Amino acid sequence: MVVVMAPEATAAEVEAVVGLVRSVSGQAFVSRGLSRTIVGLVGDVTDFEALNLGSLAGVLQVIRVSVPYKLVSREHHPARSQIRVGGVPIGPGTLTVIAGPCAVESPEQTLEAARMAKSAGASMLRGGAFKPRTSPYAYQGLGEQGLRILADVRAETGLAVVTEVVDPAGVDVVAKYADMLQVGARNMQNFALLQAVGSAGKPVLLKRGFSATIDEWLSAAEYIAQRGNLNIVLCERGIRTFETATRNTLDISAVPVAQRLSHLPVIVDPSHSGGRRDLVVPLARAAIAVGADGLLIDVHPNPKSALCDGDQALPESDIREIADVAASLSTLMGRTLAAPSGEFGQVAAGVSR
Amino acid sequence: MVVVMAPEATAAEVEAVVGLVRSVSGQAFVSRGLSRTIVGLVGDVTDFEALNLGSLAGVLQVIRVSVPYKLVSREHHPARSQIRVGGVPIGPGTLTVIAGPCAVESPEQTLEAARMAKSAGASMLRGGAFKPRTSPYAYQGLGEQGLRILADVRAETGLAVVTEVVDPAGVDVVAKYADMLQVGARNMQNFALLQAVGSAGKPVLLKRGFSATIDEWLSAAEYIAQRGNLNIVLCERGIRTFETATRNTLDISAVPVAQRLSHLPVIVDPSHSGGRRDLVVPLARAAIAVGADGLLIDVHPNPKSALCDGDQALPESDIREIADVAASLSTLMGRTLAAPSGEFGQVAAGVSR
Amino acid sequence: MVVVMAPEATAAEVEAVVGLVRSVSGQAFVSRGLSRTIVGLVGDVTDFEALNLGSLAGVLQVIRVSVPYKLVSREHHPARSQIRVGGVPIGPGTLTVIAGPCAVESPEQTLEAARMAKSAGASMLRGGAFKPRTSPYAYQGLGEQGLRILADVRAETGLAVVTEVVDPAGVDVVAKYADMLQVGARNMQNFALLQAVGSAGKPVLLKRGFSATIDEWLSAAEYIAQRGNLNIVLCERGIRTFETATRNTLDISAVPVAQRLSHLPVIVDPSHSGGRRDLVVPLARAAIAVGADGLLIDVHPNPKSALCDGDQALPESDIREIADVAASLSTLMGRTLAAPSGEFGQVAAGVSR
Amino acid sequence: MVVVMAPEATAAEVEAVVGLVRSVSGQAFVSRGLSRTIVGLVGDVTDFEALNLGSLAGVLQVIRVSVPYKLVSREHHPARSQIRVGGVPIGPGTLTVIAGPCAVESPEQTLEAARMAKSAGASMLRGGAFKPRTSPYAYQGLGEQGLRILADVRAETGLAVVTEVVDPAGVDVVAKYADMLQVGARNMQNFALLQAVGSAGKPVLLKRGFSATIDEWLSAAEYIAQRGNLNIVLCERGIRTFETATRNTLDISAVPVAQRLSHLPVIVDPSHSGGRRDLVVPLARAAIAVGADGLLIDVHPNPKSALCDGDQALPESDIREIADVAASLSTLMGRTLAAPSGEFGQVAAGVSR
Repeated sequence: MVVVMAPEATAAEVEAVVGLVRSVSGQAFVSRGLSRTIVGLVGDVTDFEALNLGSLAGVLQVIRVSVPYKLVSREHHPARSQIRVGGVPIGPGTLTVIAGPCAVESPEQTLEAARMAKSAGASMLRGGAFKPRTSPYAYQGLGEQGLRILADVRAETGLAVVTEVVDPAGVDVVAKYADMLQVGARNMQNFALLQAVGSAGKPVLLKRGFSATIDEWLSAAEYIAQRGNLNIVLCERGIRTFETATRNTLDISAVPVAQRLSHLPVIVDPSHSGGRRDLVVPLARAAIAVGADGLLIDVHPNPKSALCDGDQALPESDIREIADVAASLSTLMGRTLAAPSGEFGQVAAGVSR
Repeated sequence: MVVVMAPEATAAEVEAVVGLVRSVSGQAFVSRGLSRTIVGLVGDVTDFEALNLGSLAGVLQVIRVSVPYKLVSREHHPARSQIRVGGVPIGPGTLTVIAGPCAVESPEQTLEAARMAKSAGASMLRGGAFKPRTSPYAYQGLGEQGLRILADVRAETGLAVVTEVVDPAGVDVVAKYADMLQVGARNMQNFALLQAVGSAGKPVLLKRGFSATIDEWLSAAEYIAQRGNLNIVLCERGIRTFETATRNTLDISAVPVAQRLSHLPVIVDPSHSGGRRDLVVPLARAAIAVGADGLLIDVHPNPKSALCDGDQALPESDIREIADVAASLSTLMGRTLAAPSGEFGQVAAGVSR
Repeated sequence: MVVVMAPEATAAEVEAVVGLVRSVSGQAFVSRGLSRTIVGLVGDVTDFEALNLGSLAGVLQVIRVSVPYKLVSREHHPARSQIRVGGVPIGPGTLTVIAGPCAVESPEQTLEAARMAKSAGASMLRGGAFKPRTSPYAYQGLGEQGLRILADVRAETGLAVVTEVVDPAGVDVVAKYADMLQVGARNMQNFALLQAVGSAGKPVLLKRGFSATIDEWLSAAEYIAQRGNLNIVLCERGIRTFETATRNTLDISAVPVAQRLSHLPVIVDPSHSGGRRDLVVPLARAAIAVGADGLLIDVHPNPKSALCDGDQALPESDIREIADVAASLSTLMGRTLAAPSGEFGQVAAGVSR
Repeated sequence: MVVVMAPEATAAEVEAVVGLVRSVSGQAFVSRGLSRTIVGLVGDVTDFEALNLGSLAGVLQVIRVSVPYKLVSREHHPARSQIRVGGVPIGPGTLTVIAGPCAVESPEQTLEAARMAKSAGASMLRGGAFKPRTSPYAYQGLGEQGLRILADVRAETGLAVVTEVVDPAGVDVVAKYADMLQVGARNMQNFALLQAVGSAGKPVLLKRGFSATIDEWLSAAEYIAQRGNLNIVLCERGIRTFETATRNTLDISAVPVAQRLSHLPVIVDPSHSGGRRDLVVPLARAAIAVGADGLLIDVHPNPKSALCDGDQALPESDIREIADVAASLSTLMGRTLAAPSGEFGQVAAGVSR
């Protein structure tokens, strides 16, 4: 931590800072400049934060130079992690495609979408049973019935299932059916939910909030990790900017940046980032090329009748292209395309009967 | 709703749009321009949204011209509303000051802060018992013990109490002690929480998410209103922008804009907006002058030892100035400064025994 | 300046930083922490920047703790400055209203707008002769003919004239007619233009770029100041954010922040900030209440026929309210409303003959 | 154009809109909805804009549905354009790499950087002789001497030269030496400069302003095109957002979006986007994969001593990787890597003698 003193700070004010730091067993190194005096702090950052040094007379600014997360950081865990979801690997060396409909609408639609997902090269199925929607008048999902459909489709297709959880009270029921729990962008700082999924014993897909910094995203992952769960996959899905040509602005740089700060896998959602069908393929190519560990793509057998985000779902006619992109670019990037594991088929099928 | 066709759209594609609109009993008015054809839609917007018109061939853009909320809108409720919290009015004609510590730390600190709040002109006390924090290593609050302290301090001072709720499962216990439930900025789109507070039978203070548009903020309020609770106060607390000189950028224009779109009262939090003590008084003046219905201000008897956001809390020495600002500017704006009602003192005291 | 070393930095890498700093006669203070080593630099920042310390092995981040401007900073000029434009004061103790049409369209329209400006409490007239427009198909202004009209109207009304300059080559002709040169938001980092107005011998009104940080804004002012011209007034006019309800987001906090960092006067343009007529009066009130040194307001005798930004210009019917707001709030803020000086009337009139 | 009436608008107010539209020979189609009446306008948009319909009583919003540019739009020029710069093609079917030092510092440094550029697969050299810098105390470039160095290096290496122009008055001298004129991000809305480069008879590289929407960027290109110059290449270089981990946020989606709206080539600058050396290669890969027509990359023989942006310049050790990326990904995208033309060598060499 670094304390920057105001130009007019007195020697006594600098001394006050030094004294407080020492009072919690920290060390303080003073650099006196022409226009600024800087105090470098060595010791326990949590202790220093409790000092509210920014409140002291003569203090201009307090700069934190260490990162506010530990378990998910590469500082103490330099090697990048590989996560396994129902036998499917996500992480370095692998490219994992997850695809499916924004919302589970019916058994037929979900099964059809899962077949499209498989054709597109996916090894996992994503479908929403609980939908957080900006407007209370928008479609809110099938709930537990949707979870049962997902489990049935998993049994049929061998695709592992990831689905969103929106309420701490709903974590147990979702965890009963799904292989991986998704925390959506709007809930990235819903700390009660983060703690609940951290304790649920299932891998977690943590989407970046659309206005969260990378540091805040990793801090949200730390909430999950603190509960003993390090099976976390980060998903970049676009941030909010002034540009309105796209629904969100895909922050493609966030992929290598997050991979350097954290050992967790990082995937990209090109569907929600752009919010436009015509951008899904180019953004998917960019994501693999920048080094993403996977993709999350909306597909729908009939986008015109989709109950949620139909404008961005890929129809059958685009599936071939996604499969080609995933195959050719993963090779170029030295990655193996993850295949469905199929290992949980029978058990899952039992759940929904 | 307006459908803008692409320049190259064919007559058949325009007809397809018109046909779909009519299939849900809507009317479609076609305007053929030189470079664009526009189709104006008349009928039920929810029906139209289910058509996914954006997915149709030849459609460039679908523009929604009505607002996505109803109950909180002024369209069907032109007069601005006044809410009452434990006898204290919030809304037109009144200026209501709410003040208190960011976090409840102890009975003494809370009582002292409440006395400061009262001196500053406040009629309500705000203090956090459950604290949502970006880092899991930051102070998380006293929980129910903090709620008991707040109720005791209310009994002692006659100030109505507002405090944050962070989990749907915690709404009941908070509602037992508090006069008003606060939904924080990070939870503005935690829809499970919005529905829970909508059903709790207590007024709600809804902070604007730091990257929420005004439309999204009002849509969040609509979630609460749908559960039958229209006792909602909106609180602007700064939005996230590129500027780093302040913690957030106070969107002062949002106050008159939200007041024109919604009949709900709108207050301003100058403490979290700037995140700097030296900006609290000027921003408080600006908020009253722009027409806000109230203020929410951090005060702390000893900011240097505050467990949360000490850098922005006003100390004793600034209380006089806030009181003066509230008194003189409310008069200039034709508002009466709300006084503590004191009417619930005895009941509240009983709760914590 | 502070150099933050990466966690894995070696002792030799820290030594390399220290060695380079000493090679330009700087001092380096090393603070070794558990996860980070910090090097505090004392000496000439310009020398340090030339070292490209960020390029060195083991360096994580270089943080500049001093401000990148000097002449406009309060560090070496603690008292806030008052500028005079044609006898009209702008700065502490005074509230200066500048008003006029976005574009000079004709002698009649300009004179009528000037009379409205005067009724609104203005002591200066702003009107555009050279208009920078986003689209090349939008109205671009009358050019020098517009300048002559402004000078004539000044002679008639006694209002000092400020008008925009858009090209270094046009500075001389504008300076011949105007009392103050305006640099618009889009040209805030047009450094050739800044240097030209810095040398023109007239006061300058420097609008904040709609995506400029406060530091960049003050650095732009420094370009002008470097040419020996410290008669600069800063004008906040809204920044670009994700919110689309308003044309820009008025950054009201920027007023006290800039006044603390710089000794220059800071005024607010409530017309361009919101881009909506109904927001001009509330934002004008907020601007005065936050402590602005003046206002810049669009007025037009007939907004419906305005050739530029008609949607935001105040018509005759709102003039009374602006005058009342300026009078009552300036008193409350302990400021005197600046009056037209009228002292240059005859000379100016001569110019246009 | 679409005019949305306020919910409370009267029939007479709707009629007033219709009447005005007809007064300029336009057609108005009225759609009366339950909560809104919409008027669709058919005719000349420029005429409609002059009506200031937003100022009329009862009008809530005016929505422009056509784009504000024509010459650079694909509406009237559906095929994507290929530009030639000194014999080097830029546009569909080709991948063109432009590389060089941020600033021309000396003949040796520039020649060395040009050799690196060539090794990296570049067919064009970019180097700055006139540097627009945020701080007036930063290095401002060698001026005309720098231009002479660039011309000499072109003669030596056969690389076409692009360099920045910052002042309309400097366009002629830059055009005398360079093959292509660069308009930098800060000058994207310097309309006097745009018009000057539009008349200079040389191809133009137009960088996107860091807070410009895609529509504003294309409108800026329209200013150049209006002067008869359609040899324009657009360059995405990152936009300003709340994220501070990178200097700017590369808006990778802007590449396909701009290519769909405009027929002009679109290239990407991965160096300025991230502002970090470690991001240049991944972002370059993403840019080619998303479909960019070229790259603009900072290289420097000795980044540690660079006078400008040394933190982002690639050193010798990274050149091989850029060459590999350009070769392998251009093939995968079905593009041919552009080669230096060398055709102007002798003439250029003559200039500097």
